[in-house]
Amino acid sequence: MRLSPPGHTRFGQATSFDLFFAGAEYNTSISLSRMGMPVGFVTRLPDNDLGMAAIEQLNRYSVDTKNIVSGGHRMGIYFLEQGAIARGSKVIYDREHSSLADIAPGSLNWKSILKDSSWFHCTGITPALSKAAAEETLIAVKSAFEAGLTVSIDLNFRSKLWQYGCKPSEIMPEIFKYCHVVLGDKDTVHTYFNIAAEKTEAEASYLEVMTKLKEAFPQLTDIIFSYRNIISANHNAIGAYYLKNNKIIKSKEFDLDGIVDRLGGGDAMMAGIIYGITHFSSDAQKSINFALAAAALKSTIPGDTNFVSAQEVLSMLSGNTTGRINR
Amino acid sequence: MRLSPPGHTRFGQATSFDLFFAGAEYNTSISLSRMGMPVGFVTRLPDNDLGMAAIEQLNRYSVDTKNIVSGGHRMGIYFLEQGAIARGSKVIYDREHSSLADIAPGSLNWKSILKDSSWFHCTGITPALSKAAAEETLIAVKSAFEAGLTVSIDLNFRSKLWQYGCKPSEIMPEIFKYCHVVLGDKDTVHTYFNIAAEKTEAEASYLEVMTKLKEAFPQLTDIIFSYRNIISANHNAIGAYYLKNNKIIKSKEFDLDGIVDRLGGGDAMMAGIIYGITHFSSDAQKSINFALAAAALKSTIPGDTNFVSAQEVLSMLSGNTTGRINR
Amino acid sequence: MRLSPPGHTRFGQATSFDLFFAGAEYNTSISLSRMGMPVGFVTRLPDNDLGMAAIEQLNRYSVDTKNIVSGGHRMGIYFLEQGAIARGSKVIYDREHSSLADIAPGSLNWKSILKDSSWFHCTGITPALSKAAAEETLIAVKSAFEAGLTVSIDLNFRSKLWQYGCKPSEIMPEIFKYCHVVLGDKDTVHTYFNIAAEKTEAEASYLEVMTKLKEAFPQLTDIIFSYRNIISANHNAIGAYYLKNNKIIKSKEFDLDGIVDRLGGGDAMMAGIIYGITHFSSDAQKSINFALAAAALKSTIPGDTNFVSAQEVLSMLSGNTTGRINR
Amino acid sequence: MRLSPPGHTRFGQATSFDLFFAGAEYNTSISLSRMGMPVGFVTRLPDNDLGMAAIEQLNRYSVDTKNIVSGGHRMGIYFLEQGAIARGSKVIYDREHSSLADIAPGSLNWKSILKDSSWFHCTGITPALSKAAAEETLIAVKSAFEAGLTVSIDLNFRSKLWQYGCKPSEIMPEIFKYCHVVLGDKDTVHTYFNIAAEKTEAEASYLEVMTKLKEAFPQLTDIIFSYRNIISANHNAIGAYYLKNNKIIKSKEFDLDGIVDRLGGGDAMMAGIIYGITHFSSDAQKSINFALAAAALKSTIPGDTNFVSAQEVLSMLSGNTTGRINR
Amino acid sequence: MRLSPPGHTRFGQATSFDLFFAGAEYNTSISLSRMGMPVGFVTRLPDNDLGMAAIEQLNRYSVDTKNIVSGGHRMGIYFLEQGAIARGSKVIYDREHSSLADIAPGSLNWKSILKDSSWFHCTGITPALSKAAAEETLIAVKSAFEAGLTVSIDLNFRSKLWQYGCKPSEIMPEIFKYCHVVLGDKDTVHTYFNIAAEKTEAEASYLEVMTKLKEAFPQLTDIIFSYRNIISANHNAIGAYYLKNNKIIKSKEFDLDGIVDRLGGGDAMMAGIIYGITHFSSDAQKSINFALAAAALKSTIPGDTNFVSAQEVLSMLSGNTTGRINR
Amino acid sequence: MRLSPPGHTRFGQATSFDLFFAGAEYNTSISLSRMGMPVGFVTRLPDNDLGMAAIEQLNRYSVDTKNIVSGGHRMGIYFLEQGAIARGSKVIYDREHSSLADIAPGSLNWKSILKDSSWFHCTGITPALSKAAAEETLIAVKSAFEAGLTVSIDLNFRSKLWQYGCKPSEIMPEIFKYCHVVLGDKDTVHTYFNIAAEKTEAEASYLEVMTKLKEAFPQLTDIIFSYRNIISANHNAIGAYYLKNNKIIKSKEFDLDGIVDRLGGGDAMMAGIIYGITHFSSDAQKSINFALAAAALKSTIPGDTNFVSAQEVLSMLSGNTTGRINR
Repeated sequence: MRLSPPGHTRFGQATSFDLFFAGAEYNTSISLSRMGMPVGFVTRLPDNDLGMAAIEQLNRYSVDTKNIVSGGHRMGIYFLEQGAIARGSKVIYDREHSSLADIAPGSLNWKSILKDSSWFHCTGITPALSKAAAEETLIAVKSAFEAGLTVSIDLNFRSKLWQYGCKPSEIMPEIFKYCHVVLGDKDTVHTYFNIAAEKTEAEASYLEVMTKLKEAFPQLTDIIFSYRNIISANHNAIGAYYLKNNKIIKSKEFDLDGIVDRLGGGDAMMAGIIYGITHFSSDAQKSINFALAAAALKSTIPGDTNFVSAQEVLSMLSGNTTGRINR
Repeated sequence: MRLSPPGHTRFGQATSFDLFFAGAEYNTSISLSRMGMPVGFVTRLPDNDLGMAAIEQLNRYSVDTKNIVSGGHRMGIYFLEQGAIARGSKVIYDREHSSLADIAPGSLNWKSILKDSSWFHCTGITPALSKAAAEETLIAVKSAFEAGLTVSIDLNFRSKLWQYGCKPSEIMPEIFKYCHVVLGDKDTVHTYFNIAAEKTEAEASYLEVMTKLKEAFPQLTDIIFSYRNIISANHNAIGAYYLKNNKIIKSKEFDLDGIVDRLGGGDAMMAGIIYGITHFSSDAQKSINFALAAAALKSTIPGDTNFVSAQEVLSMLSGNTTGRINR
Repeated sequence: MRLSPPGHTRFGQATSFDLFFAGAEYNTSISLSRMGMPVGFVTRLPDNDLGMAAIEQLNRYSVDTKNIVSGGHRMGIYFLEQGAIARGSKVIYDREHSSLADIAPGSLNWKSILKDSSWFHCTGITPALSKAAAEETLIAVKSAFEAGLTVSIDLNFRSKLWQYGCKPSEIMPEIFKYCHVVLGDKDTVHTYFNIAAEKTEAEASYLEVMTKLKEAFPQLTDIIFSYRNIISANHNAIGAYYLKNNKIIKSKEFDLDGIVDRLGGGDAMMAGIIYGITHFSSDAQKSINFALAAAALKSTIPGDTNFVSAQEVLSMLSGNTTGRINR
Repeated sequence: MRLSPPGHTRFGQATSFDLFFAGAEYNTSISLSRMGMPVGFVTRLPDNDLGMAAIEQLNRYSVDTKNIVSGGHRMGIYFLEQGAIARGSKVIYDREHSSLADIAPGSLNWKSILKDSSWFHCTGITPALSKAAAEETLIAVKSAFEAGLTVSIDLNFRSKLWQYGCKPSEIMPEIFKYCHVVLGDKDTVHTYFNIAAEKTEAEASYLEVMTKLKEAFPQLTDIIFSYRNIISANHNAIGAYYLKNNKIIKSKEFDLDGIVDRLGGGDAMMAGIIYGITHFSSDAQKSINFALAAAALKSTIPGDTNFVSAQEVLSMLSGNTTGRINR
Repeated sequence: MRLSPPGHTRFGQATSFDLFFAGAEYNTSISLSRMGMPVGFVTRLPDNDLGMAAIEQLNRYSVDTKNIVSGGHRMGIYFLEQGAIARGSKVIYDREHSSLADIAPGSLNWKSILKDSSWFHCTGITPALSKAAAEETLIAVKSAFEAGLTVSIDLNFRSKLWQYGCKPSEIMPEIFKYCHVVLGDKDTVHTYFNIAAEKTEAEASYLEVMTKLKEAFPQLTDIIFSYRNIISANHNAIGAYYLKNNKIIKSKEFDLDGIVDRLGGGDAMMAGIIYGITHFSSDAQKSINFALAAAALKSTIPGDTNFVSAQEVLSMLSGNTTGRINR
Repeated sequence: MRLSPPGHTRFGQATSFDLFFAGAEYNTSISLSRMGMPVGFVTRLPDNDLGMAAIEQLNRYSVDTKNIVSGGHRMGIYFLEQGAIARGSKVIYDREHSSLADIAPGSLNWKSILKDSSWFHCTGITPALSKAAAEETLIAVKSAFEAGLTVSIDLNFRSKLWQYGCKPSEIMPEIFKYCHVVLGDKDTVHTYFNIAAEKTEAEASYLEVMTKLKEAFPQLTDIIFSYRNIISANHNAIGAYYLKNNKIIKSKEFDLDGIVDRLGGGDAMMAGIIYGITHFSSDAQKSINFALAAAALKSTIPGDTNFVSAQEVLSMLSGNTTGRINR
């Protein structure tokens, strides 16, 4: 649950919060469903009206919720103050002791959950919540990997989480061994896996780290490193590098001036990656461009979730990038 | 009636709609009245509280509503989702079977309506609604032309309208024969009148099409072709070419970065053209600059209507173009 | 009390006003308190619920209100319409006969008020309200000066005020004689003190006027001239020149594209100047940069008041100027 | 201009104000126009966007504004906090030095203004604003009386006004001598004219005071005394006594439980009285019932103005008093 | 799609509309799903973002939408102005030419749609929209009846609909022949079936009409006649009579003082009836009380849909009828 | 921190939450300060912008915050859905692991905190949060008792709290031994202290339990038992019994029809009790009436806090109980 003071008001000025159900995997699942893919979501939610509302929001966008378990005491919250120009957005996490963080590791029957699925996705946020959540993530990816699913991960490092006594470098490598597709960036790879660039030139350093990562984790099939040039809180440019079949290609870069909502861009990109790999497998350039275009559209939509159709993303790829009115 | 989800929310996120009464001729009439010109509005509206509210809004801005007739079953609606950056604004028209679309052609007494007027304005939107509306438009322009009024038209092509079985090229040329002043653009002129440029260079092609149009419709006295360079949904640049007395001049170009509401820019420009021709007839450059400045100001105001005084536009022409605070 | 139509709606479209308590000295006092300095505020407010609400807002941010006196008939109001692009923001002042404007000169016991203080700040707005307010301002600065406080003034010329029959040049020089620190600009210095530049090149003319001002008012210790390059209502660049110890330095310049709220920038800068002189006295460059960074942050916050901590400003000075998310 | 914190929030909690243009005569004029009567409004308003917005609101409801003069410095404001249950609504007047209060007596050409009119209405609020406003009111009623118009007055005593040094009893009797139709109540008649009841039983005391008033001011043709039984801030019952042709009749009484907005009830009643006398002159019972029904409907509408048609009031009189849905 | 001015504002005051997806069968289906029953919804919606949003809303509450067909030009709209006290709520229907109204009769494959279902519900609103909709309704009930489903109908007479040239009495009897369970009232039964009471006493007349209805339509198994005593727009009392197995019982009556939203009460009751018959078949008193309690709860919830669980209704039946806080 | 869906929307309908800082002791402290008493507040809040905002809200109303300690991970939250008629308001507590719940018992220096104070107030909510909070409460009351302060307690039983493994009856008696003034009710006294009535008649049973409580805890000086007759969620009647000096008196009873916000009524009453005992010690009837009138006023104000002055309460006691407009 994301709670944001309206517009650009600061926390101290707020008299109300806009409510968005959100979460890295949550956003990705709805985005994929909106683009027409069958998708289910697994988590643990409290047995109260807020937990029910979160589930209903997933139902609304046809995400399968039958594997969500009920239990625990509270829903994780994050408070978001929207920045502008030189004032960065500010996040206050209130996710400790959430239902998911307090899960009993091993309590989910992944065999049954993953049956009939061909892809499993997770992020670096869940293992950051608690030891239990990290353990359950490991069980999940291992189950998925062994069941022959494609496993993807968005590394998603959040320094304000990871408060339970373990460092990411103690947790993430083991999980990562079971992943095929990764969305990350140089800093996170350094933090998680202690892999860094020696080269200093930007592009060269990307290629170096991506290559080293592939060497360290040979099961990886698709490595995507995204970057975000931040001109100001409301003006970013985004792009990505994509390593597949030993070739690294660069995505189209999108200039985002006049950002409506910065959050969820990476989740939208991740959904675009999954959609792209699934639909344009022979065309890596199209896949990565699709992912970036999806992320670009996300920046125009309030909330964390990318309510766009695959057709809208494709239309953008085919050149409709200037926001002309459709009438 | 325009209904828009607040801010940049998408249709699927909306829990309320902002209400603006709007319409191409509606906006132009209020804008002209706000700039101090006497103006009346003719249409057909349903006999219910929504029709009454639309009339009251015109009264509010001193537009004469005595020639609005009551009848029919519904008010035309358009739903507008505001775009941002690369996501274009989206329009859902719900104008079929509106009171105006269902008008009985010939039911308006134009002789009486036009008495004491010197200018008649219409747009390409009304003939796009229904066969009946197209026929009534033809009757109106012919009556106005024959009664010696100046007749202006904003070509305003909307591809999502024109659903009643006629093509614009079957309808618009006949109407256009009775017009003196036209606001249009190259694409629309091609669609309506099958007049296209052979030259490829931008400015040259404008001149070519404007000249050909004047040749095909020699009754035209003022031809204005506007253009809009769309950098993104919130960043446009607008300008226009103006053919008068066999000379083509170019307007000042305005850079609109941080657009508040994109809609109604053309209607504001049209009002500026009518105001300009009426007030600065000997100074074509001032006329067209006035029109563009008016359109530029419109982009800063929520809704479709340009609530600015002539003095505000003139102040902008005299150099106050940077939005300095007036205090 | 500032009353603004929401967002970018014009006065004529308003159905509600957003309420912010505001005022040049008010904003500066809260900003200083938010940055951790002990500060009190002196004014006269009506004895009604609106006056009480204004005081409570000061209490909220730990500004000492014990020297605010109760009396008079009304609270000064200003109505603000937010501009965009080429449409400037518009101010309607309704401050005549406010409690402060109707003060009986000499009714405040400045000796007691200023006891235990080391700094007194005032602006050119108070003397613009009424003869009485001008006289009380003179009494105040004189008392402060004689009591050995540092006296600062933000020249703040508002042409729409000054309606009581005196010109600023009749009032301000006498007040200014008791000031040590001044925030101003070339135009205001010309209007108030009839000091103008002969040089035409921008920077040179700044230096010239600042030097002349120091010569005319030798008691001045710190002269800051700010400038604002206005690209559009939502895109400004700000900077300043700072004369101290016979040296003039130039501040870092900040580009503000996507301004949330333009008002209160000068007041935020003034608070930054006071903070800077107090905390970084030996580092004039840091002082002036701090002041400009504070003003830059203000432009991202709704309302007139700069709700930022000193730490946030310092973080910006140390390079965090791109609004990166903090999570 | 009325400014109200939303809903039932107190002044000290407000972060915005709902804006309604309002005023006793203002409300009455719009109400009459909405019921289909031709009506004009005379006042003095400042020459700024707020003054213009007030005029536009009158235009909106087809009230003739051509006799409104421009001038003065500010628009009168009243702040209204909505009460509930045992907490009464609270009014803060900020009307001193309004454009109307500062009018130069005699500056309006009543002969020309009243030409072609048959009825003039004023209230006890205008004379309460300032000596000048009282004098202009006297000039107006005298002019109207002498020109043969029916003159009506709503006594409307507001104890928080009357701050300019005269008592109502010094001002109102002279004005009252030129009135034919009066809406008042026992307390106000006592305050204004020193006429009080000796009888103690409620109904008898009404009859007594009304009779004495008629004796003291024999030019009166219609005397209406309203009463309001206040069970709580959201539950009132209203009724009235009506003296005409030496007979006193009692209106239907309306129980108002669940009041939406308490303000403007008297103004709505006044409009109903004028409408009633004009349309049902032979049926005093219908007239007074119409007035009360109009006032009852007002209590269901946000703001001070009674946006109801005559047909809606008549439908209520014919028995539709229970708020059944019309579908 | 229901569009309502916020709170109690009138249509002419609206600057926005609150958006609720609504409709008699729509509300009933969501209510049933919320109470835990599997339910699907059949209609025809336009292929645009508004149609999609309506479907998503059903998905949200786990109503099966797979049988909704796409087509037609527009979504039916109704505008609702909320009344208060003596001012009734006002409905403006804009449902002509909706996708459903323009359906091609016979185009739905009811055999396939109804497969695996045991209950079919429809209302008197669909046949009121158009001849086509009436024909499709007849096909549907006949198919359901013949397939052995229980068929229920809410008679729901809306006089403002029925604009297509047929009277209800020409259409409804044929449809009604295939219904087992009916929710209606005396007036509607008179309008539809020309069955009226001769007895004048309230309760007796109910019994008489219900008995006659059963005689005329012997296939009926459950007849529920509801009544609503309307004290004011915000204060109603509701109750019902229930004829089953030749016995008529009376429901508990609920006093609703302080109604939040009057709409959808009948639909909530209908859902309660279906739930009751399905779950408490042997206890007719419990069934009807459950239905009334559900309708009572609806009156406390904004919008047309009864977002309550079966458990909440049961808790109310067991005595929690006073709105005590649950904490 | 209280988060409420706007108006009467249910949790599942919410798209935003209204934010109120609240809490039993929090509300009581602000209420006392608003009534003019010097008061301080002691708690533990997280060191983030939300904790700071809570403190600023206390500063705003002149509650001394210097003894609030910083620490812990989160601010306690409760979500409140506002009921209506038969639908009760619903509370979801999210207070586990709040900064206060995780306090280290004994970490507060009560000697220093209580210095210069004459009254200490606590409630039954704090001990319900956690073992640590219960222990700290015991330390506090004991310190206050021993330091000679008057100690008051609002028993405030919340069944949804008390999740940490202790029953109230294991915790509360020990704390209660150090209290002089208690606000409670029969049920809570039974739950906490196992003291119940044998008499069945309402008033008699109150007297019996109050007397027994005084016998069991002879240090008590003032026992107040309040009751709330709940007609519906928006219609309550409140009253209280007051045992002092061996006499039991009954308060005035207040009928609250049209409740704006039900929460915080008990806290307002508690503040009234403290104010009453302090100011009208010789007049127990006035004390208890004052407390009830304060609670009655609270029901008219949004949020949990009673923003009323002592003068407003006294005015109500002197008969202004019908919510007449003050103008």
